[in-house]
Amino acid sequence: MTRVTRRYHFAASHRLNSAQFTEEENRALYGKCNNPYGHGHDYTLDVTVAGPLDPNTGLVVKLPALDRLVGEQVLRDVDHRYFNADVPEFKTLVPTSENIIRVIEDRLKARWNSVFPGGPRLEKVGLQETRKNRFESTEDQAR
Amino acid sequence: MTRVTRRYHFAASHRLNSAQFTEEENRALYGKCNNPYGHGHDYTLDVTVAGPLDPNTGLVVKLPALDRLVGEQVLRDVDHRYFNADVPEFKTLVPTSENIIRVIEDRLKARWNSVFPGGPRLEKVGLQETRKNRFESTEDQAR
Amino acid sequence: MTRVTRRYHFAASHRLNSAQFTEEENRALYGKCNNPYGHGHDYTLDVTVAGPLDPNTGLVVKLPALDRLVGEQVLRDVDHRYFNADVPEFKTLVPTSENIIRVIEDRLKARWNSVFPGGPRLEKVGLQETRKNRFESTEDQAR
Amino acid sequence: MTRVTRRYHFAASHRLNSAQFTEEENRALYGKCNNPYGHGHDYTLDVTVAGPLDPNTGLVVKLPALDRLVGEQVLRDVDHRYFNADVPEFKTLVPTSENIIRVIEDRLKARWNSVFPGGPRLEKVGLQETRKNRFESTEDQAR
Amino acid sequence: MTRVTRRYHFAASHRLNSAQFTEEENRALYGKCNNPYGHGHDYTLDVTVAGPLDPNTGLVVKLPALDRLVGEQVLRDVDHRYFNADVPEFKTLVPTSENIIRVIEDRLKARWNSVFPGGPRLEKVGLQETRKNRFESTEDQAR
Amino acid sequence: MTRVTRRYHFAASHRLNSAQFTEEENRALYGKCNNPYGHGHDYTLDVTVAGPLDPNTGLVVKLPALDRLVGEQVLRDVDHRYFNADVPEFKTLVPTSENIIRVIEDRLKARWNSVFPGGPRLEKVGLQETRKNRFESTEDQAR
Repeated sequence: MTRVTRRYHFAASHRLNSAQFTEEENRALYGKCNNPYGHGHDYTLDVTVAGPLDPNTGLVVKLPALDRLVGEQVLRDVDHRYFNADVPEFKTLVPTSENIIRVIEDRLKARWNSVFPGGPRLEKVGLQETRKNRFESTEDQAR
Repeated sequence: MTRVTRRYHFAASHRLNSAQFTEEENRALYGKCNNPYGHGHDYTLDVTVAGPLDPNTGLVVKLPALDRLVGEQVLRDVDHRYFNADVPEFKTLVPTSENIIRVIEDRLKARWNSVFPGGPRLEKVGLQETRKNRFESTEDQAR
Repeated sequence: MTRVTRRYHFAASHRLNSAQFTEEENRALYGKCNNPYGHGHDYTLDVTVAGPLDPNTGLVVKLPALDRLVGEQVLRDVDHRYFNADVPEFKTLVPTSENIIRVIEDRLKARWNSVFPGGPRLEKVGLQETRKNRFESTEDQAR
Repeated sequence: MTRVTRRYHFAASHRLNSAQFTEEENRALYGKCNNPYGHGHDYTLDVTVAGPLDPNTGLVVKLPALDRLVGEQVLRDVDHRYFNADVPEFKTLVPTSENIIRVIEDRLKARWNSVFPGGPRLEKVGLQETRKNRFESTEDQAR
Repeated sequence: MTRVTRRYHFAASHRLNSAQFTEEENRALYGKCNNPYGHGHDYTLDVTVAGPLDPNTGLVVKLPALDRLVGEQVLRDVDHRYFNADVPEFKTLVPTSENIIRVIEDRLKARWNSVFPGGPRLEKVGLQETRKNRFESTEDQAR
Repeated sequence: MTRVTRRYHFAASHRLNSAQFTEEENRALYGKCNNPYGHGHDYTLDVTVAGPLDPNTGLVVKLPALDRLVGEQVLRDVDHRYFNADVPEFKTLVPTSENIIRVIEDRLKARWNSVFPGGPRLEKVGLQETRKNRFESTEDQAR
């Protein structure tokens, strides 16, 4: 089994605030990330694909096809955007990195099989928010 | 002459839009950075101080004093903030990295001599917006 | 399952020398790391926490609580310290990165359940000694 | 179980071209990597070793022995070389990163047991081709 | 005076060999870099532009224009290429980093004034060959 | 004029304490760096050499000669050492980064002209102590 991890970058802004909580609770929970006008990050997105090696091409996945998929399903909608106002999923969801990663994963899976029929599987999506925090969502067997 | 460069980090968001231009001109000039709701970055701020070595302490500058100055004059007001709405200077100034660096430099110089009387001088302020763009403002002799 | 990896830094010094071996054996085994007065590193510590996403907060773990735990159990005792003389566990244990990582893991587990009752689990502790060597200890199921 | 990842570097060049395909197919499949005179990269090689901690030495693996093995089996033959002409395996194999990693893995396994009898096992070989692409081959149980 | 440094990347291969020297002298002078089939690197190119801040736009240089110039004059001809065979200047010039940087500088200067008439000046060209070697060519006053 | 910066690494430990001050003053001045048993860092050393390009070799400086000089004059004595006890200059000098850099510079200059007679000059010595602090000493004209 060979794994290929392809790295992408995007810049975006967000504000952490949940309609479930009072203003004070939000402040206590999210700290500076609750500041009213939002703030931003340079996100690093790692997409890990796993599969067998094609003996003719020596490749696990054709990277131009992966780049197109990630570009159309993710980067086009989030790069240089404000998650809370620009990305529909976050009208009702708090744009924490944990939620952002799940949304990215769902968007990639929505078209994965049509782009890579019988092909390598999406194994992991990783998101680095800042140099201190890294998030990962793994495709568990049982899920 | 010895130089010390101290590195700081902050996360912020901005939108590039100038009241001098029409909507179309702004879009042509700033591209994705003109998106209406803003976007964000993890900024790296490098403050370079130059001076002679104090023979007793072996130091050019006391870093805790520098940290306090940068914290109070810069980081407190920009970290996890939206430049356009949260930082007064940018009510009338477009928050390009070039302008951000000038504002940071002015804020540091405003209190420099009272914090470091007869001490080392502020030589350079560097700002890295993304891993592709780096900006510097140097204290020129003649200025 | 979502994983969050939080990165911490500390600077420390150590000397590799085992009471089990002769002077010559120690020198042969540990090379330059056996030098009598010790030497130091800037260590990078990665703590990986795994758990389900809380639907209300959008978080897997509250980072301020994690930071406090790591600060009190680890960083306070090792940052800017000499492992051999300053950290009790290394009176009898050789401060290799492998042993340091086990001590860190044990210290975090000692208070994990009281800080995160029913909460996310400590999945992995990673330690980067230099840019060439990286160490990891994983919480195996069977352990 | 403790894991140690040791990092190595080498510079090499390659050209992606498969005798199975026409000139046009090769161009379509490999893009710029099919340019006739080749091109190069600074590769980062990560070798991950897993095993129990030796209680006397506090080590999982003796790094000088690992360095010697990687040096003799891999680096000596690929560093500052052109894969297609200098490394025998690639007379018939396209030097994609996926294939390079398999060749490296096979070369390490060929002498692993004689160097580390009863010792730690080779768990993973990782290869970073550029800052955007990372490849891994894991020793699966079933293999 | 504000400086903007824009970072670009390209992968290329080269062989160091001078027609001025014998085979043995070349080997003694360039070591592994003299290997007959060449080898490669991931180069990082930093272009530093200096000038006054335009008060209307808040910019020193329009980056899309700079990107186009660097792309057409440099990247198009060197990315994924073999310097010795693919880039005309190196038919007679040894492709050391020092010479590569001079060729890049000359190519940028050849069209600089027509792209940026009365505009910011090209101040420095930096080339990082590997993580150990960095080269710079500065536009000296007197030159 | 072309500049070449060559990067070296070493690991060392130090304790900041000046015989000029009382225990309390030392603690106030150096903070954690005054801890009695010392602590350590992974230092990055950048040596910048400037000179004209040799038209025959395409080089500014022969790197093997530079490596030998830095190895013999600096790395051999400081790598995996405790500055305060192992390096003679620091019997009387506080091993701050500012002082370490001056000692390195003096050691390189002591043999520079015999190694590079009429050759490129030593322009700058840079030392990165941690990812937050960088120090430079420049060969000023007037010095």
